[in-house]
Amino acid sequence: MAKKEEFVKDIANIDEDFAKWYTDIVRKADLADYADTKGCIAIKPYGYAIWENIQNYADKLFKETGVKNVYFPILIPDSLLQKEKDHVEGFAPEVAYVTEAGGEKLDEKLCIRPTSETMFSTLYAKWLKSWRDLPYVYNQWCNVLRWEKETRPFLRSREFLWQEGHTIHETEKEAKERTIQMLEIYTKVVEELLAIPVLRGRKTEKEKFAGADETYTIETLTRDGRALQSGTSHYFGQNFTKPFEVKFQNREGKEEYAYQTSWGISTRLIGAVIMGHGDERGLKLPPKVAPIQVRIIPIAMHKEGVLEKAEELKKSLEKDFRIEVDSRDQVSPGFKFNDCELKGIPVRIEIGPRDIENGECILVRRDTFEKVVVKLDELNTKLKEMLDDIQQNMFNMCKKRLEEKTQIATNMDEFTKKINENQGYIKAMWCGNVECENKIKELTGAHSRCIPFEQEKLSDKCVCCGKEARYMVVWGRQY
Amino acid sequence: MAKKEEFVKDIANIDEDFAKWYTDIVRKADLADYADTKGCIAIKPYGYAIWENIQNYADKLFKETGVKNVYFPILIPDSLLQKEKDHVEGFAPEVAYVTEAGGEKLDEKLCIRPTSETMFSTLYAKWLKSWRDLPYVYNQWCNVLRWEKETRPFLRSREFLWQEGHTIHETEKEAKERTIQMLEIYTKVVEELLAIPVLRGRKTEKEKFAGADETYTIETLTRDGRALQSGTSHYFGQNFTKPFEVKFQNREGKEEYAYQTSWGISTRLIGAVIMGHGDERGLKLPPKVAPIQVRIIPIAMHKEGVLEKAEELKKSLEKDFRIEVDSRDQVSPGFKFNDCELKGIPVRIEIGPRDIENGECILVRRDTFEKVVVKLDELNTKLKEMLDDIQQNMFNMCKKRLEEKTQIATNMDEFTKKINENQGYIKAMWCGNVECENKIKELTGAHSRCIPFEQEKLSDKCVCCGKEARYMVVWGRQY
Repeated sequence: MAKKEEFVKDIANIDEDFAKWYTDIVRKADLADYADTKGCIAIKPYGYAIWENIQNYADKLFKETGVKNVYFPILIPDSLLQKEKDHVEGFAPEVAYVTEAGGEKLDEKLCIRPTSETMFSTLYAKWLKSWRDLPYVYNQWCNVLRWEKETRPFLRSREFLWQEGHTIHETEKEAKERTIQMLEIYTKVVEELLAIPVLRGRKTEKEKFAGADETYTIETLTRDGRALQSGTSHYFGQNFTKPFEVKFQNREGKEEYAYQTSWGISTRLIGAVIMGHGDERGLKLPPKVAPIQVRIIPIAMHKEGVLEKAEELKKSLEKDFRIEVDSRDQVSPGFKFNDCELKGIPVRIEIGPRDIENGECILVRRDTFEKVVVKLDELNTKLKEMLDDIQQNMFNMCKKRLEEKTQIATNMDEFTKKINENQGYIKAMWCGNVECENKIKELTGAHSRCIPFEQEKLSDKCVCCGKEARYMVVWGRQY
Repeated sequence: MAKKEEFVKDIANIDEDFAKWYTDIVRKADLADYADTKGCIAIKPYGYAIWENIQNYADKLFKETGVKNVYFPILIPDSLLQKEKDHVEGFAPEVAYVTEAGGEKLDEKLCIRPTSETMFSTLYAKWLKSWRDLPYVYNQWCNVLRWEKETRPFLRSREFLWQEGHTIHETEKEAKERTIQMLEIYTKVVEELLAIPVLRGRKTEKEKFAGADETYTIETLTRDGRALQSGTSHYFGQNFTKPFEVKFQNREGKEEYAYQTSWGISTRLIGAVIMGHGDERGLKLPPKVAPIQVRIIPIAMHKEGVLEKAEELKKSLEKDFRIEVDSRDQVSPGFKFNDCELKGIPVRIEIGPRDIENGECILVRRDTFEKVVVKLDELNTKLKEMLDDIQQNMFNMCKKRLEEKTQIATNMDEFTKKINENQGYIKAMWCGNVECENKIKELTGAHSRCIPFEQEKLSDKCVCCGKEARYMVVWGRQY
């Protein structure tokens, strides 16, 4: 036990300094590290394997709905970026530019994509002829750069990995349906794979994507009650297709501009998992996304047959589970238990000479720390059940916290008091004016998260100005 | 038939203008298109799906040997690039630099990775402590930029996609084994997946990677007898680990520099497939890598039950094959046949009212154009056999051409005559001096491809200077 306490000291106390706890987990659970390039991170194998699991899960869902993957250039001529006014205003301050290449100064500087609406629109304009060609439902998994001033691993990094889907359609209706369809897929990824419940709705005018008509969002809540925008889907109408001349001959033989969407999720989701599930002992990974679902720790490893039995178990289970044996001989079992917890491995199996004699082993759950003795011949079934149960329980735990941290406010005193005493979401009515939105931000530090799909009428009046309310909005402080 | 001839006119004659034929195929088979960014291409769904199949196949083989995927920053501080002399000399002329970002001029310009030895070495130096940590066997799938003057889709593009593996090891022996092991995996990818036989060997001093001790290569031969470097694996010794201080405490408790390798394959392989297999009718894809293995073309589609039967067949086969129905109603079956051939789909199925009546359909092979009538209840089995046979036959056809285009020369007159009359590989003895290598290049346009693993003694004398020969080298003109 002495060893354990000492070990846990290496990470900051989660309730005292959540921000430090977070970066400690990122580095000590071996997810990522800072690189020499300021504001960028190096994603290490354990962190990248989480991303691969997210990619595989999402990509399969995308393809089932007809999404096709492509890869378009990272460098965008500056003149293309300038074509849509709102878009360039929103992104220009964060853009990184290539100005020299091949030993020469470039004639026109090239922007490194912060997002690719402009590149996709340019190419779509080149290819699109007839309504028969539509829809284009393309996506790319790639890196993007946004020159953020303050960075935090996974949550806000100057370079990050994401997927960006860009579609064009014959009709407004079809484009709007695609916008919502992708939000539903994102909901599935976050709730079913990552075991985090989401809040869904539409962004306000102030918070929507630069150039969009409508932005839809899924929001998650961190353990310390802050909001994380975790995926967005945008409906553009013809905002880009007009300046970029993405037009087609419609069924009536007339020229028409296409209707456009885009949508993305990123490595930020790894941050959502860390902040959504982690606890005082470290990371806690939902089984479906965990790179290692089960780790076997041999006890009294020097005794004859122990390591062999552990390896034999692994062999018999590796077809059904992502499993490994911790056979390091320079550290104690206690150290290995801690390491399992720090890394958030859903289940550890302890097996020693006496267990082998009895034909059993001990399973320890990461979510509840519950220990169960299991007969070796039932191990496969029991493990399966336990992992399913952990996945569900982790979702439930998050859901419970979400409910505890969602409060209602009908005036600004209440708003401020509640968000300060129990940081989380505040549901409140809003008149629809950006002035009130700005004032709420000023007074409480909370941004509007979204206008949820499921509207409730909490009162008739705007929480801020007292005038007639138009929407119920969920507010929260954010990372 | 008139229609077909007209259609084929759209692509250049393969024997008259191979270079134009190549870019025609790239664009008309919908693999990729030029983008507004000079020297860069947009990889379209059909081209990207080939890359995904290559990625999946290779990534699985990598992981079976313990490779772990990571993602490190694309931007490398210029000072890091400068640390290894040969490396920077080799790459500096092709580097693109970010000099402005977030609205400000940067203090130190940032290089966009042309390759990541310097980034990996920096991070490895930070993490490595003891021999117990070794080996690091990391890989990333990513984009890189090299500012080439002349570009050609897939073969040489300013931005391209690849994987770059970077490993460090405790001993020279282990590192050298990894270098060769990865070359063997690349051989498998190209020979078994892409059905193209490779030439394998070591690059000469002149042709090796900037900073490497030894570079190993797999080379493929195009239909017009040019060589394509298709994958390389490098052994670095301690060339990077010394300047980057990648050191560890060895088993004797002493400080030692690690031994390093790197290895990569890229979207250039798509070019190798086009140039290796294509013919006068278009692209020809090996079944294992083809995004669409089988396309069903309904004949007399307007007749009752035809389209339904085609869809039914597709449903019954889609579990085992990548298959689709061409149900376009605005084009003729003849157009669809041509389109199938242009896109290189290995097998097309023709099915019309009479076939349905007889409980059969017609299979047409892309490699031999052979037509076979098959009973519908045997379709699954016959298709499987046919696809396997096509895969093997395509490899054999390439192998035969490779043999026909590999010639021996014992003096320069013979060398020049043979390479001009039947462009391809020339096997010739070499003294080992770079002067002869340069002179051969000057006289014939041929670079040394490699010093093959399988050496033959063709004569005692260097083909160029007549002095004592050290190696048999394979030479060839390249893309």
